[in-house]
Formats: sequence, C-alpha cells, structure tokens
Amino acid sequence: MDYGAFFRSELNSLREAGNYRAFAELERHCGRFPSATCHNGPGEVTIWCSNDYLGMGQHPAVLSAMHNALDRCGAGAGGTRNISGNTHDHALLEAEIADLHGKEAALLFTSGYVANWSALGTLASRIPDCVVLSDALNHASMIEGIRHSRARKVIWKHNDLVDLEARLAELPVEQPKLIAFESVYSMDGDIAPIAAICDLADRYGAMTYLDEVHAVGLYGPRGGGIAEREGLMDRLTVIEGTLGKAFGVVGGYISASAELCDFVRSFSSGFIFTTALPPAVAAGATASMRHLKNSNVERLHQQANVAQVRRRFDAIGLPHLDNPSHIIPVMVSDPVKCKLISDVLMKDHRIYIQPINYPTVPKGTERLRITPSPVHTASDIDHLVSALEALWTRCELARRPVAA
Amino acid sequence: MDYGAFFRSELNSLREAGNYRAFAELERHCGRFPSATCHNGPGEVTIWCSNDYLGMGQHPAVLSAMHNALDRCGAGAGGTRNISGNTHDHALLEAEIADLHGKEAALLFTSGYVANWSALGTLASRIPDCVVLSDALNHASMIEGIRHSRARKVIWKHNDLVDLEARLAELPVEQPKLIAFESVYSMDGDIAPIAAICDLADRYGAMTYLDEVHAVGLYGPRGGGIAEREGLMDRLTVIEGTLGKAFGVVGGYISASAELCDFVRSFSSGFIFTTALPPAVAAGATASMRHLKNSNVERLHQQANVAQVRRRFDAIGLPHLDNPSHIIPVMVSDPVKCKLISDVLMKDHRIYIQPINYPTVPKGTERLRITPSPVHTASDIDHLVSALEALWTRCELARRPVAA
Ligand SMILES: Cc1ncc(COP(=O)(O)O)c(C=O)c1O
Ligand SMILES: Cc1ncc(COP(=O)(O)O)c(C=O)c1O
Repeated sequence: MDYGAFFRSELNSLREAGNYRAFAELERHCGRFPSATCHNGPGEVTIWCSNDYLGMGQHPAVLSAMHNALDRCGAGAGGTRNISGNTHDHALLEAEIADLHGKEAALLFTSGYVANWSALGTLASRIPDCVVLSDALNHASMIEGIRHSRARKVIWKHNDLVDLEARLAELPVEQPKLIAFESVYSMDGDIAPIAAICDLADRYGAMTYLDEVHAVGLYGPRGGGIAEREGLMDRLTVIEGTLGKAFGVVGGYISASAELCDFVRSFSSGFIFTTALPPAVAAGATASMRHLKNSNVERLHQQANVAQVRRRFDAIGLPHLDNPSHIIPVMVSDPVKCKLISDVLMKDHRIYIQPINYPTVPKGTERLRITPSPVHTASDIDHLVSALEALWTRCELARRPVAA
Repeated sequence: MDYGAFFRSELNSLREAGNYRAFAELERHCGRFPSATCHNGPGEVTIWCSNDYLGMGQHPAVLSAMHNALDRCGAGAGGTRNISGNTHDHALLEAEIADLHGKEAALLFTSGYVANWSALGTLASRIPDCVVLSDALNHASMIEGIRHSRARKVIWKHNDLVDLEARLAELPVEQPKLIAFESVYSMDGDIAPIAAICDLADRYGAMTYLDEVHAVGLYGPRGGGIAEREGLMDRLTVIEGTLGKAFGVVGGYISASAELCDFVRSFSSGFIFTTALPPAVAAGATASMRHLKNSNVERLHQQANVAQVRRRFDAIGLPHLDNPSHIIPVMVSDPVKCKLISDVLMKDHRIYIQPINYPTVPKGTERLRITPSPVHTASDIDHLVSALEALWTRCELARRPVAA
C-alpha cells in the first residue's frame, strides 16, 4: 500500500469539504489578554473564542504560584504518580478540588480529556455488566472512554428526561448503570436538568457522572459549577472537571467518594502509566481555584459582558442560539461561509474567532462560538459588534427580526 | 447494585495480593535534586527511581525559559490547538522536535501516553484494513491505542525477529501493516534490534512506529534516541517520544512526514478535543531539547554513574538485569518483599525507590527499578550500595556469585 498517497487523499477530501483546519498561531501577552499577536495573521488581534473564560491564565495569583513552584521544585514531576512523580503540590490540589465539590476525594489526570476517557473507561469496563447511559451530545472524550470500555452503551436523546427514563426502565433493576452527561454543553451552551436526572438515577439505582468542564470556576458561589449553584453536588456520584478552561492552566480531574477515586487510581491505565502534571501546573491550578472560591468579581463581570454582547447582537438581528450560559454560538450553518467570515474578521478587523466546523459540531450547524470574558472591554465589544454587523451586510447573511 | 461495596472489595483484593499502591508524597527542591522531602515519610530522602533521567527538570535553561514564557504569555494555552490554543511556542517546539529526529514534521500531545494512544489509534483505525504488529512487551499506552482502533492486532514475541518475520509473512502482501515497538523497554532496559526490524518492514511493506520515550535526550549525539545513535531515524515511519522524562517537563509527540502528521492532526480525537499544553511547558521543553542537542555532558555523566552503580552491585552480588541501557532493574520477584525492601530503604536509609509490582510488570518479576542520573554524587552511590547490601543480608535475599 502507498501510505503517503492514502494520507494525501484523505487530507484532500477534508479540504474539498471545507473541513480542513488551519490553526491560527497566537502569542498571548500576559496582562494584555484578550489581545494577542497572530504570527500567521495580521499581527495584533483580539481573541473572542478563548476558553480561558475568566482570564485566570494571566491572574497574578496564578502566575506567582507557578513561578514560586518552579523555583521551589523545578519543571517536571519526573515520573508517574506511582513512581516518584507524586508531589506535595498534587496532594494539595486534590484536597482543594475535593473541597470545591464537597466530596471526600479527587483524582488528577493530565487533562479533562484523559479524566473522562480514563475514569469512564475504568468504571464501565471494571464494574461487571455495567451499562452506560450516555447523553447524545456528550463530548468526544466521554464517547471514547465509553467506547474503550466495551461496556454496553445506551444513548439517550440530548437533555431528554422522558427518553432517559424510558431507557432506564428497560434495564433490569439489578444491572449496574452509569448515567454520563454534561452540565453546560460546550457548543450549544445549553444546560442539563441535573436535579431531574439525579431523581431518575435514584429511582433506577444508577450512578451519575457529570462533566462540568465548561462550568467549573464559572457557576456557583465558589465556582463549583452548575451542580454547586443548584445545590446538587452531593447527589452526583462523580463530578469531572478541567483545570485548563476557567481555571486557566491545564489538567483534569474527577471528584467523588474516597473509594471510587481510590478504585480509579488503582485500576485506570490512563492515570497509572503517564508522567504526572508538573508541580508548577498543580500549584497554579490550586491558586486559581482558591481565588475563584473567594472572589465573585470575575464571574459577575463575565456574566455582565455576556449579557451585553447578547443584547447588542439582538439589536442588530444577529442569529445566535439562546441559552442560559456564557457561550454565544452565532450560527452560520455552512462550513465554507463560516471559515470565510472568520478569515475576514481576522484580516480586516483583527478579531480572532475560530470557525467551528465538523467534526466538532454536526455538519450544517457550523458556527462562530463567542466567549465574552471579564477582560474584554466595552470598546472590544463595540468593535466586535460593528465588525459582525458590517460582515453580515457584506455577505448578505440572514438576520433575525429585531424587536422594536 | 451496591457500588461502594464493589469498589471496597476490589481494593481489598489488591491489598491482599500485595498490589495496592501507596504513593510517596514528595517535594523536590530545585537545585538539590535527587534530594527531596518525603511528606508522608522520613523527611529528606534521595530519589533513585526518577525518570527525570538527566536532572533537566532543574536545569537553569529550562527554568528560565519557563519563567520567561509565564511572564510573556501567562499560564495556560486557553483552548484546544484548533480553537485559540495554538501558540507560537507550540510551533517552535514542533520545529525543534522535527529537527531532532530529522523528519519533516512533528505533532505535540498532552503526554507520551496520549501521543501513543491517539496516533496509533488514529493510524490503525483510519487506514483501511490495517494490521498492527505489536511487540509483546509494548507499553500500556500503545496497547490501549491499538485496542481502541479495533484494528486487527498481531502480537510478536518480544524483540524476536524470527517471530516477527513469520507473522509478517502470513499476511497478504497488499494489506496495510504497522509494526509498533519501543527502543529502550522501560522495565527491563533492553533495546530493540531497530535496523533489522526496519529491514523486515521494508521487505514486507510495513510502516514502523517506534516509541523512544526512554531514549530521547539520552542516546545519540544530539539526544535523538537509539535510532539517532544507530543512524536509523530516516528508516522509521513514526518516532514517538515524551517531554516528561529526559527532557524534564511534560508532554508527548510524534515525528514523521508532513502528511502523516497532518493526517493525525486532522483526525485524531485525542489531539483535537483537548486543551493544548501551556506555552510555558512548550518553551521549557524546547529549551531542554536545544540544550541536549548541543551538550553531551549530562549524557556522559549519566552513563558513567550507571556503569559505576552496576559495577558496585556486581561486587556485592546484587541480582540485577544485565542490559545495555541506563535502567538498572534489581530483581526481587515477590510483591510483598519488594514493597518491604522499599519501605525499609525509605524508613531506615532515606532512600526512595518505588517497588515495581503488577500490573506495571508481570507477577513474579517484581523489582526495584534504579535510574542513576548525572546529579547523583559518589557519596549518594556509596550510600545506596551500602543500604542495599545491609538489606540483602538482613532479609536473607539471594545474591549472584561474585567474580573473584
Ligand atoms: C465537555 C468537555 N469535556 C472535556 C473536555 C476536555 O478537557 P481538556 O481540555 O482539559 O482536555 C472538553 C474540551 O476540551 C469538553 O468540551
Ligand atoms: C514506553 C513508554 N511509552 C510511553 C509512556 C508515556 O509517556 P508519558 O509519561 O509522557 O505519558 C511511558 C511512560 O510513562 C513509557 O514507559
């Protein structure tokens, strides 16, 4: 077989479908985010699609904790958690996470992706005869973890309690069950009915696994996520989160009972056989989490900016998904146009918003996913709105009716 | 089902088999490594089982690059590589890696584990009808990647060319084939016959995938690994490595042709759907790699210490695996004794060597895996040898005959 020819032809198919991804090469400037230099673009740009939702990646408390840990312990952990790579900074961070979610324990992974893949993979494969009930729009990392487990998977309609209950009712009472879902869905920004899902879990004897990746740090009085805001943390078997989005660093975790965490710690390949996160990363994430437990300023400012951007979009009829979260998906629904708009925004307006195409979202639902943060200024918002307004006119894109 | 009872009983089985893992909680002291504080042990200890093989985790060039990048860009990347998380520091590191291995391109992952899992998973699942020929002792991350792909897997006897050839010869000529193996095997420290494997790959039209995780930075005039040392880099389809061991930071990569890297970049779930490594991590790894391309001091000093420790072990008849690498496995071959020795070393001698038990190594081959580094001093070595000597006497463990 001519392997090179195969790779080339697959890449060409992607290009022809408008789904080939070109990465913007950015250099953020600490203290000036959301501004960044785009090395393969027009120079200075404003980022409107970052998942550093609160700008914590440039928070002095986070940076000084990281500098300090680098000076104190050096760069890497030097081993897996089991073999010389388990550090005091990991222990402190796991305690901080358990406290955030009101759980007995927490377990760190190298990323949120690995947390989902490893924890779901381990639970679903090791619990005899376990069935996973997976929301239809779950993230790739959950899907791959469930797939890897080879456990039986039952997909229920996105956020649909009637469908979930019907699926649960079909299963034998004694069969182990795990309901896997997210709180804030990343691409649509809608939020799961967590309390009602927990009610069903109780009724049918299922465990619950909640991905709060797009909610931790952002919701709840201490940033514990939607489950904290709604007083539901103790009803969830596992809460999973990331350290790479609102907390501004990198890494992932689960938080749960001591025995569940110990079980995953003891049996999960993706936890055991990999170098631990650097102590400086753990220290930075701990500082970020501590700060956001005690400060609402960032969350309030973010929420105000999100509301403001939505109002301004409504005023010019820009079609965006209405949802109760901080994520504003502006729908273009065509991969080629979506990429074109993004290119023009970058080139003519120095605004960076990555087009979101397949496979991240279903074909036909291509979009610009906009994430206002507390570090965007009023003039950043003015600039964004006028650029999109000009583009919508120029490209003759559909608008919504504007309320009088 | 009572899930908690299930977790408890599984953990109890581990405990009864002597395979329950307790983590030493360490705090390294930058500039004083291999010394560290053991928070759940006797305080100051000397680490003899780190994979920070060259002490690069405390190298000033690495630390200053990281401090500098933190000041310049902040903490996290703030997004996936595709969505706002692709930074200039990632581009520089990928270029540095491609140069190290003499390849057109490189692709970063959050860890070596994820690199293996994602790259093998993507290649084996996407190349139609691909068969993976996997060395019997391949690392968990490769096994899981192959398993995930659901491609047909053929396991060949460890480092056995006759067996590999027999397996290749059984497959149809036109069927796509991928031979996956390691250069230095982590737990036994033996080294694959890379040239002969490449010959077989050429003869049977197979791609080659070489994990150099325990060799990059350590072998070859520029630290390109065993394949560099043996002048074979251009014969390998994919070279995979880590940034978390000899390079002292964290992260993983593949290096290969531009089209292969672009293919994995475009289709691999584990690459696409996860937050990128922090720019400071990328900058630290780049600095480490640059340094080790230009400096042999660390490698020579390490090799001298490894040879010295082996000689001293031979002189007292301590049973260790003879191998041509920097890894010295001292065989105990019993999980309970292995843990006991490690505990006594820690408690009475302030020496930290994690016992290596199942599932990291097969049952019955439990060992102390010792990794001398250039930062271990002559007196560290004296102390290690006399502690092990005392313990071997006290526990009445078997010795090898000592040459006169
Ligand atoms: C819902 C969801 N879960 C998990 C992840 C993975 O988290 P991480 O970026 O820390 O790997 C992501 C995005 O990256 C996500 O959107
Ligand atoms: C042979 C081998 N490959 C891959 C890995 C994974 O690399 P990383 O620690 O960067 O995840 C390891 C160990 O951790 C290993 O021993």
